[in-house]
Amino acid sequence: MRIEAIAIGSELLSSERTDTNSVWIAQQLANLGLSFHRKSAVGDVRDELLTLFREALHRSDLIVCTGGLGPTFDDFTKELWAEILGAPLVENAAIKEHIEGFFRNRNRPCPPTNFKQALIPVGAEALSNPVGTAPGIFWDSPEGFPGKQIVLLPGVPREMKRMWEDHVEPRLQPSEPIHTLRMLVGSIGESALDERTTPLREAHGHLDWAILASLGLVELVARSKDAVALETARVAFELELGADRICTGPGTLESTVLERLQQKGETLALAESMTGGRVAALLTAVPGSSAAFLGGAVVYSAKAKTQLVGLPDDLLQAHGTVSETVTRALAEGIRHQLGADWGLAITGNAGPTEDRDGSAPLGTSFIAVAGPGGTVSLESHFPGQRIDVQVRTTNQALDFLRRAMA
Amino acid sequence: MRIEAIAIGSELLSSERTDTNSVWIAQQLANLGLSFHRKSAVGDVRDELLTLFREALHRSDLIVCTGGLGPTFDDFTKELWAEILGAPLVENAAIKEHIEGFFRNRNRPCPPTNFKQALIPVGAEALSNPVGTAPGIFWDSPEGFPGKQIVLLPGVPREMKRMWEDHVEPRLQPSEPIHTLRMLVGSIGESALDERTTPLREAHGHLDWAILASLGLVELVARSKDAVALETARVAFELELGADRICTGPGTLESTVLERLQQKGETLALAESMTGGRVAALLTAVPGSSAAFLGGAVVYSAKAKTQLVGLPDDLLQAHGTVSETVTRALAEGIRHQLGADWGLAITGNAGPTEDRDGSAPLGTSFIAVAGPGGTVSLESHFPGQRIDVQVRTTNQALDFLRRAMA
Repeated sequence: MRIEAIAIGSELLSSERTDTNSVWIAQQLANLGLSFHRKSAVGDVRDELLTLFREALHRSDLIVCTGGLGPTFDDFTKELWAEILGAPLVENAAIKEHIEGFFRNRNRPCPPTNFKQALIPVGAEALSNPVGTAPGIFWDSPEGFPGKQIVLLPGVPREMKRMWEDHVEPRLQPSEPIHTLRMLVGSIGESALDERTTPLREAHGHLDWAILASLGLVELVARSKDAVALETARVAFELELGADRICTGPGTLESTVLERLQQKGETLALAESMTGGRVAALLTAVPGSSAAFLGGAVVYSAKAKTQLVGLPDDLLQAHGTVSETVTRALAEGIRHQLGADWGLAITGNAGPTEDRDGSAPLGTSFIAVAGPGGTVSLESHFPGQRIDVQVRTTNQALDFLRRAMA
Repeated sequence: MRIEAIAIGSELLSSERTDTNSVWIAQQLANLGLSFHRKSAVGDVRDELLTLFREALHRSDLIVCTGGLGPTFDDFTKELWAEILGAPLVENAAIKEHIEGFFRNRNRPCPPTNFKQALIPVGAEALSNPVGTAPGIFWDSPEGFPGKQIVLLPGVPREMKRMWEDHVEPRLQPSEPIHTLRMLVGSIGESALDERTTPLREAHGHLDWAILASLGLVELVARSKDAVALETARVAFELELGADRICTGPGTLESTVLERLQQKGETLALAESMTGGRVAALLTAVPGSSAAFLGGAVVYSAKAKTQLVGLPDDLLQAHGTVSETVTRALAEGIRHQLGADWGLAITGNAGPTEDRDGSAPLGTSFIAVAGPGGTVSLESHFPGQRIDVQVRTTNQALDFLRRAMA
């Protein structure tokens, strides 16, 4: 089966945006044992689109288009496909009602341009969009083109993903599935992980291996049609990685920390200075996090440190904001304030300028974990831009907490 | 001039990699006033490549291929182009010497497969590769195809970039530069913005317009070679959009809020429940945010609300956590605690389950801003997944604050 991705939108040809939808879809296809043969991106230009759609219809069995389904003047993916396939557009009452309801729920008037989204080509199925207004479109063997499947999805990633899962995946014919083994590993670095696992990877050389690093975390991924071989590899790698392994499967560092807290019936409180709420935002993005995460303080000023966490002013004066002593006191303070089992605190200097008092060089961070058995702390120095230092420190803090809880 | 990008490599069709080279090249083209008309990615498959290359030669004036120039069995970009253009391959002694030198300098034996990289098609120029072994190839008006330009570059970004700068850019004919006008607009919706700006966009119809929406924010972008026309459009659109416009140019909602605070010499404190630190994380990602942002509390539990912001327990009991009264009290409380000019508070239920006491339906949020002139608040209902509700509410809260500060 020849599968082709077409991403529509002039912004995708600029340096400001790129098509990420097809990358996500490639993963979904891989789970079904399928893969793309070609990907294209093209602007909101009628003739360019018509040419590309006709070529794709000629050469591919399944064509997945993303973008150009919205209400605005530069959206005409559906109209052009209807033209190519000779299918008239007819208003769908249920979708029109969905669009009106969407605006009603937001207390906003519904501009009539939106109703163009309720037009569905004859012979195509409309795919409902629970998170937006533009429905998707699915053609299975359109008249004159037997065996061809054409899917039109919105370009907004969260709408596209939801509709793919709800409507497209169930309509596709899976091939022999490709299984994936994924392990998330913390704080040991990509090349160290590469070196450490080389003998094991060679011993499991019939699997398709990849090591993917991102700001302090490393993913080890193996793919194969042979589920038993993957399971054997899983056991061997879990043994080798020990406590460095965060989780096996689709989890994240933050979901692993929250799970461990819930398993123990324990709670967590945060005091974040340099990471500025980033650890809290990661944790609270996980559904059900309120069972273990009590909250905390973003102590981005001296006033916030004394007022919200009760730090004595003279401690700040004596040691400086970015210091091991202050960070430990913040972890213990927020733990006490909220009556939590664990307190995690982070201070540091992410740049772009040196600390006001010059005590903390750019990229310095202190992490402290206060727990039932006492307080532990860690000093680090990361290179890179402000945002890299913040993200790396966020990951390191959560991983330090994870290891402290073990 | 029609310009087309072709990225070659089976990994670019998977979920693990994506073509980033063309995104970088798009920026270089924009600096010359040029832009892509189409981008494709295709695997290391002879027939797929031949078909795509022939199509591109037919429809485009400049074709930029990246990848498939290396020494291995699956590299044949150059060979296929030579076949299409009927150009025999001849060994280039200087390049052969460069390849041998490359290995000699690294004290590594030179596998003879590498010498295939020294074969250059007759009629093409070889582009030297100072950071690798594979030379690039440049055809200007190949025999039988007058006016066409074909560039073959390695897929390794570091090598590709260096060769683009050294060899390709000087050979391209710059056009007039394309200027961009960008406006970020808050809380009015994509289709409403479309409708409201239609007459103005039609009046400035010679500009190239796009409307891009993401979770409560909308970008209005115009491109043109005519800088004066863009400036005229800027004035007209700023007048039309009034307070709905967040900023013109490359700014974000959070940087705009921080700039406005700094201009006024005012400060901000946060109390986030449902957004769980997301507003704080956005603000603190901006360099220099500590000048105006004092910090705040992530009040993810009742304890955090009473302990960190000093909310009376009976207020929570009487009104429920997710309520206008509690949200206003949180905004006023955190403003008072930190002695800030502005206090912003957010409560709500992002799902996935209903509130424990059933008082706040899924997707409900309350936002309150306490400022020098009093307290204002806003109730909203968003559909969608937990993360969508959190992100939309984060944007809406910052935009509500921005409007309250005006």
